[in-house]
Amino acid sequence: MTKPRKTDFNLADFPAQAQEKVRWSDTDAQGHVNNLIFASYCEAARIELMQNLGMFGPNRRFTIFVARLAIDFRAQLTWPGTVEIGTGIKAIGRTSITFFQTIFQNGVCAATADIVVVHVDATGTPSPIGEDVKQSLHKFLID
Amino acid sequence: MTKPRKTDFNLADFPAQAQEKVRWSDTDAQGHVNNLIFASYCEAARIELMQNLGMFGPNRRFTIFVARLAIDFRAQLTWPGTVEIGTGIKAIGRTSITFFQTIFQNGVCAATADIVVVHVDATGTPSPIGEDVKQSLHKFLID
Amino acid sequence: MTKPRKTDFNLADFPAQAQEKVRWSDTDAQGHVNNLIFASYCEAARIELMQNLGMFGPNRRFTIFVARLAIDFRAQLTWPGTVEIGTGIKAIGRTSITFFQTIFQNGVCAATADIVVVHVDATGTPSPIGEDVKQSLHKFLID
Amino acid sequence: MTKPRKTDFNLADFPAQAQEKVRWSDTDAQGHVNNLIFASYCEAARIELMQNLGMFGPNRRFTIFVARLAIDFRAQLTWPGTVEIGTGIKAIGRTSITFFQTIFQNGVCAATADIVVVHVDATGTPSPIGEDVKQSLHKFLID
Repeated sequence: MTKPRKTDFNLADFPAQAQEKVRWSDTDAQGHVNNLIFASYCEAARIELMQNLGMFGPNRRFTIFVARLAIDFRAQLTWPGTVEIGTGIKAIGRTSITFFQTIFQNGVCAATADIVVVHVDATGTPSPIGEDVKQSLHKFLID
Repeated sequence: MTKPRKTDFNLADFPAQAQEKVRWSDTDAQGHVNNLIFASYCEAARIELMQNLGMFGPNRRFTIFVARLAIDFRAQLTWPGTVEIGTGIKAIGRTSITFFQTIFQNGVCAATADIVVVHVDATGTPSPIGEDVKQSLHKFLID
Repeated sequence: MTKPRKTDFNLADFPAQAQEKVRWSDTDAQGHVNNLIFASYCEAARIELMQNLGMFGPNRRFTIFVARLAIDFRAQLTWPGTVEIGTGIKAIGRTSITFFQTIFQNGVCAATADIVVVHVDATGTPSPIGEDVKQSLHKFLID
Repeated sequence: MTKPRKTDFNLADFPAQAQEKVRWSDTDAQGHVNNLIFASYCEAARIELMQNLGMFGPNRRFTIFVARLAIDFRAQLTWPGTVEIGTGIKAIGRTSITFFQTIFQNGVCAATADIVVVHVDATGTPSPIGEDVKQSLHKFLID
């Protein structure tokens, strides 16, 4: 990474925004939300976005696999409360989509996440993303 | 149980109501929400109620342990969507509280749950519930 | 329940025995294994048994839904460690199987569970259990 | 990363090895182990290692927070079965430890993970790792 990484984020800067409630069962014995649940919040927001676009749902026309998940943790998340997830798209490739997501609680950015998903066909082989899908994803591009 | 069990439930009949969003990670390989997650929805609603009453929270003045959890499943829960949880109290004992909870999705009752929690002191020994707590719980009693 | 309930259990008394490792992510902010995970340990042991009998697996010939899950909690489960699950069958009905399961940690019985599962056909309708399956389940009957 | 990344891994190459059983509840509606559970397997193995070294346990002398978690997914994990987790340490810093972990199922590497944890004091502030701990971690260094 050659250019300095942006360190301040605001939920309002993200083209897609979602909210999740922290469940008691999300916490672990350290008394805060378990790290893995951060990924669960991002997953929920990301799939909600794709589902809203008609790409991903019970009928599963657009099947994806997560190829890479990288989360940088900045602050604890605590129960009780809600979290807000900001989602944007960094890149749309031939078969892949690179998401950038952030998790906020009470206005504080608790984590950022880079996720690469790959579109696959029925056999699990990477498969080109259709032009219509690319088109609908365009408005979620961030830089 | 000697008298016939009530089989029709409406969310509006419950003194406390909560909502949870179904997360993609709540589903299992059978394609619907995993049975165990039903208990998680009930737990979240129950603890939310107790937390709202100031009984249970980060400062943990009112420590409870679940003594019994019984869930009757009636229908599948599916993603995407939300669930609504109705919570009432069936009995307030010297050291225990018996909750009755129901889970609805799109107006259909998908499960009912009976949960007994026991109030314990710092050593984990059952301990009498204070009169003030009993008082605040009274308005959640159902029959 | 008219006759006094048995209160002492030994893993060795159960016809099927399984072991699970407690994961850090199984704990919650109260510092011990979350109550819901108890059901997860039972589920894992139960499905392992059915899978060993060829009833339930990736090919899913024998599809079941859980109709009822009742857990009595007796002791905490802690991390790190393993748990042992004893599984027996209390009743084999026309379309249902009633399991009785116990969870032990370091020789202490931490919970007992009654679970009723219903065999269903492709449409989700309760469906008679085949004689061959009943036969293979017979040796797991306990009283 | 300037040098080409190693792409073949063997469990035997890792100084620490752990095993987890895939639970039915680890799967999601796509029919395989949910992506987030991969991180759970790594977490379990990592904490097991630290716990074996006496760094991390119920008494919590060595408190850490995860600062970064990056997982590259290579293959599906399926139920039923076990997974093996290989764990090594890439770097020991003043306050941080960088782990490298891999998950195998039936000899196939299903994922690799880079995890950075930071040692913190009681106030949550990064705090120097003691020489004794560094010493005990040395034998887990990989390159």
